[in-house]
Amino acid sequence: MTSISIIGAGNMAGAIASVLAKGGASVQIVAREADKAAEVAAAANGTSAVFGDALTGDIVVLAVPFAAVDDIKATYADALAGKVVVDITNPVDFGTFDGLVVPADSSAAAVIAEALPGAKVLKAFNTNFGATLATGLVDQTTTTVLVAGDDADAKQALIDAVVAGGLKAVDAGSLKRARELEAYGFLQITLAAAEKTSWTAGFALHA
Amino acid sequence: MTSISIIGAGNMAGAIASVLAKGGASVQIVAREADKAAEVAAAANGTSAVFGDALTGDIVVLAVPFAAVDDIKATYADALAGKVVVDITNPVDFGTFDGLVVPADSSAAAVIAEALPGAKVLKAFNTNFGATLATGLVDQTTTTVLVAGDDADAKQALIDAVVAGGLKAVDAGSLKRARELEAYGFLQITLAAAEKTSWTAGFALHA
Repeated sequence: MTSISIIGAGNMAGAIASVLAKGGASVQIVAREADKAAEVAAAANGTSAVFGDALTGDIVVLAVPFAAVDDIKATYADALAGKVVVDITNPVDFGTFDGLVVPADSSAAAVIAEALPGAKVLKAFNTNFGATLATGLVDQTTTTVLVAGDDADAKQALIDAVVAGGLKAVDAGSLKRARELEAYGFLQITLAAAEKTSWTAGFALHA
Repeated sequence: MTSISIIGAGNMAGAIASVLAKGGASVQIVAREADKAAEVAAAANGTSAVFGDALTGDIVVLAVPFAAVDDIKATYADALAGKVVVDITNPVDFGTFDGLVVPADSSAAAVIAEALPGAKVLKAFNTNFGATLATGLVDQTTTTVLVAGDDADAKQALIDAVVAGGLKAVDAGSLKRARELEAYGFLQITLAAAEKTSWTAGFALHA
């Protein structure tokens, strides 16, 4: 059975937990505040609320804002060595709303991979609004999770877990493609903020 | 009546000509080879095949590869001064297929705007596969053209012309967003090349 730890207790943590638990994975919610973790776990069938630092999953989803990366590194660097680590962030510069806070030739995923050299880092879920993970649909189209990474086995394990949860999941290439995925995520956020799409829709990949 | 010149005689030139002619615009095809221009014009109702350098349109679509930009500048720089110039390119590095040939903190549109300082440059159509312009559909969803640019009137004129042609068109922000549009276009091309989507589909924007 795929075992997954999700660090975070927000909207995205809950939506990702639901998808993966539905697919039969063993899902652990890890959050500083026990009651928030319990809330997320209660909303997502099959997950177990855990609070504290012990990560039990082989796959660890960092469902936290990009600004929390330093904190994650300080708290979990040793625990994450050897694990599959999933970065879901859109490192938007919310001060200007006109770009990203990561270097132009890099990505949040690349910054995280550098911070956690022992981890197998994947980029995923950043192109999905939480609501489209929860419902499984963008409009009438099944939600697709785009997954980028350099470790083929890690990538396939996450893709399998997402597909088991009823969504589509697509190999979007090497971790270098995180740059394009983050540009896409940012663009989608700007379009929703400008009401050119809704926070329950956005872009969908068609066959 | 909106008057549009399209420089180029390829697949994208033809598809864009069809949409805009259908919307009632006066469309001119400008290509070095008269027979190719005539072919494109014949396929797109309401267009007139022209061959040579005389640009009659207020809006000029550069339906050429990014590599042709220097050539365009040498040939048309004076003629393009004051006009709305639409960049549709995806400046993919086809040698590596692993990135773009423009600087990471820039875009093809920004490079073109710098080369043509008198022009009002827009980025558009680069996120659409030609087939989705021709049919008006991505799968069952109306094709959306994403348009970025710094001149609000120029942007609105192109959006109106596209909408008149039966597609959706969305203001995607300032010309700086061309960077994200080109990342999106490149990602979509890599996914089609890897058969994760088809060249007749790709991403669609939903409401």
